[in-house]
Amino acid sequence: MRDVFEHIERHTQEYVEELARLVRQPSIAAQGVGLEECARLVAVMLQEAGARIRVLRLSGAAPLVYGEFPGRSPKTLLVYEHYDVQPPEPLEEWESDPFEPEVREGRIYGRGVADTKGNLVARLCAVRAFRQVRGELPVTVKFLVEGEEEIGSPNLHRYAEAYPELFRADGCLWESGGKDHQEIPNLYLGVKGICYVELVVRGANRDLHSSMATIVPNPAWRLVWVLHTMKDQAERVLIEGFYDDVEEPGAQEMEWLRRIASSRDDAALLQDLGLDRFLLGLSGVELLKRHLYQPTCTICGLVAGYLGEGSKTVLPKVARAKLDFRLVPQQRAQDVLEKLRAHLARHGFGDVEVVPMGLEDPARTPPDSEIVRVVAEAAREVYGRDPVIYPMMAATGPMDVVCARFGTPAVGTGVGYPGTNVHAPNENIRLRDYVDGIKHVALVLERFGASGGRAEGSA
Amino acid sequence: MRDVFEHIERHTQEYVEELARLVRQPSIAAQGVGLEECARLVAVMLQEAGARIRVLRLSGAAPLVYGEFPGRSPKTLLVYEHYDVQPPEPLEEWESDPFEPEVREGRIYGRGVADTKGNLVARLCAVRAFRQVRGELPVTVKFLVEGEEEIGSPNLHRYAEAYPELFRADGCLWESGGKDHQEIPNLYLGVKGICYVELVVRGANRDLHSSMATIVPNPAWRLVWVLHTMKDQAERVLIEGFYDDVEEPGAQEMEWLRRIASSRDDAALLQDLGLDRFLLGLSGVELLKRHLYQPTCTICGLVAGYLGEGSKTVLPKVARAKLDFRLVPQQRAQDVLEKLRAHLARHGFGDVEVVPMGLEDPARTPPDSEIVRVVAEAAREVYGRDPVIYPMMAATGPMDVVCARFGTPAVGTGVGYPGTNVHAPNENIRLRDYVDGIKHVALVLERFGASGGRAEGSA
Repeated sequence: MRDVFEHIERHTQEYVEELARLVRQPSIAAQGVGLEECARLVAVMLQEAGARIRVLRLSGAAPLVYGEFPGRSPKTLLVYEHYDVQPPEPLEEWESDPFEPEVREGRIYGRGVADTKGNLVARLCAVRAFRQVRGELPVTVKFLVEGEEEIGSPNLHRYAEAYPELFRADGCLWESGGKDHQEIPNLYLGVKGICYVELVVRGANRDLHSSMATIVPNPAWRLVWVLHTMKDQAERVLIEGFYDDVEEPGAQEMEWLRRIASSRDDAALLQDLGLDRFLLGLSGVELLKRHLYQPTCTICGLVAGYLGEGSKTVLPKVARAKLDFRLVPQQRAQDVLEKLRAHLARHGFGDVEVVPMGLEDPARTPPDSEIVRVVAEAAREVYGRDPVIYPMMAATGPMDVVCARFGTPAVGTGVGYPGTNVHAPNENIRLRDYVDGIKHVALVLERFGASGGRAEGSA
Repeated sequence: MRDVFEHIERHTQEYVEELARLVRQPSIAAQGVGLEECARLVAVMLQEAGARIRVLRLSGAAPLVYGEFPGRSPKTLLVYEHYDVQPPEPLEEWESDPFEPEVREGRIYGRGVADTKGNLVARLCAVRAFRQVRGELPVTVKFLVEGEEEIGSPNLHRYAEAYPELFRADGCLWESGGKDHQEIPNLYLGVKGICYVELVVRGANRDLHSSMATIVPNPAWRLVWVLHTMKDQAERVLIEGFYDDVEEPGAQEMEWLRRIASSRDDAALLQDLGLDRFLLGLSGVELLKRHLYQPTCTICGLVAGYLGEGSKTVLPKVARAKLDFRLVPQQRAQDVLEKLRAHLARHGFGDVEVVPMGLEDPARTPPDSEIVRVVAEAAREVYGRDPVIYPMMAATGPMDVVCARFGTPAVGTGVGYPGTNVHAPNENIRLRDYVDGIKHVALVLERFGASGGRAEGSA
């Protein structure tokens, strides 16, 4: 691969400019800003690199950009990415314009350089370099670039149902990843699901003077009572059947967990968070196992009555709790929603409204998949370090819709590092990681094309 | 009294203009708007009516205006009023400028006409009329007009401690009151106390991505758990000793409760509030007894994490509950605060911060007080109806600081009616009620001056 790697090194400046070109186009899904323009730009960039492109549209959804590069073998590698980014606010905390990328001290700054325009362009540049040096790709590469990842990919399943043939592949490079504090590349094989709901309790038809609390029901109290039936102080979710489908990690996964645990600095994380201890006093492998393999029921928001500073004597007319259940294999979001509803009815809270606000199923790549082995080996060669493999992430992404439903194994890898400030001001990546990331993907292309049909287990 | 009453009728237009003059001066305690200017205007109006005035000032407090009219007998009637008003917002819902009073269809509209500039000016006009017709008042009348009632009178106790001689009196006309749906004048003999606190639970030093909920404590859950120890679904407050000092109403009070209950239209109130039933399914005398004689523990606000529309996956760093305990005789606000703290410590929630945000003790006028009899008799004569006497109000006011601590019996009476829109847009009083209210106070002056030292029980 020396030929391709040398080509990449010589064209570094060009690749940085390509990234800057994409970052300059704001594309904020939460605010509906620039999505159409950014989708068109991604399509142009794919086309310039030699892809056959399609810009897919469904009513009420941001466009989905598809680009396909033909390859020598019948094998297909899917690249899942997104062109949308988080809002840049608070603007005053940026040292340079979030939409005018700037290189300072070996880092590229701008909204989306890490999450995930940097990964998108790195992968595109890897394909370009490979084609320019070798003329042909070893495998067919499909880019699937959506525009609503940062708001929970609410329409991606509709695209998957409408265009299943564009999603099918033998392996998938998932959108992002990076190095940890010890400069070891981390790979991710799975994501949690989510069931996000709002519980709504209603009282009188308007806020009242709190002196009426003697005789008028208070929905805020009822919210406390209903929430109390859902989780106890031992952090156990009390919804009947909630844990039925939760699986313990297998032997391979436990081995990875032990490796990850040994590489983590729990004390530094506690200090960073301003905490004395983690939940339930856990540490080490047990902490990590809980983090990656246990589902949650999280109050993300409590809203009732007077929200401002100081005091106001008001009896609220409505109380809301925003709840986020993070789900692990084999839980299903719809099933958890139904169990929640049954729980409320069983406990006498059938009057409490449950408003679903986002359901995604978890997904997990089998550890012995070929793409896992290939990406890990390529990482070892490019970075000179044995990668740490996370069998699961604690966070959520549309891996079920994009990959699991089609039986496609997926691996998260990318150009990030612990200082990237994802979702925060001064988002950045290191120039070195960006160039290495391009090489890594180029090597994955080569090895995935060369490898046999069946995986032989991870190295 | 025909002479004084005829004088009042002839000068109606002048009295309306006096009220308009005061309403035109905004005086919004919650926003710190116009308090100094309004205090000076009240002092001028008192002085024009013949009072010796003092404008008292304490650091960090709105001025307290004191005006004294000498009388024939050594008896002293205190008039407690306030010159501050509620904020006028939402402005777009007013049909005329809240600070430019307008008379439409027999009603005077403007912020504060009912609560309580209308009562203040009515009382001032009663004194003026009496002095103009008779030359001398039968009793000494002391006006005590504060500027912070709408924000809980946080500094009034300091004025009471600094100037006790200005507070002492033989009876007090409390700030407000009015007629009910049946056009029967209502009198009020007591107020509840209040202990308003904020409970604060803290977690990590910043809001986190909710995927961290597996291993980082969630203060919103802890808030649910601590609140659950404080009140059960039977609406029973679970704080140890909370009900120790709660007294049952006496025989006279129960008799009044029965009369009030028979005059109320519970069904209409339920319909107005959009409810099927009152709390615990109560009705009639039992409902009223609970409303006036039971303390409360009300969640006035729940604030944690994401408060906006839609969903955001956040693990909150802090969770707050704003709690309002309404207290009945003989509960004490400071005692309840201490019992709350002890409760939290006993139940393992010693880490939960308790921030006091307003403490007032309850107060109650003995039903057989002379001022009660005089005000009731005068009402009967002026309005031609037997007044309904509320032994207590469900709401709170500084009656303990102004009256109870000095042994002064107080009666709430005033120019309101059910459509006054107190604290709301289009606040108004009826012109007829305003003029009758002036006559009522004039008659109270006469009768209180004429009556003997000891009360003979209510008529």
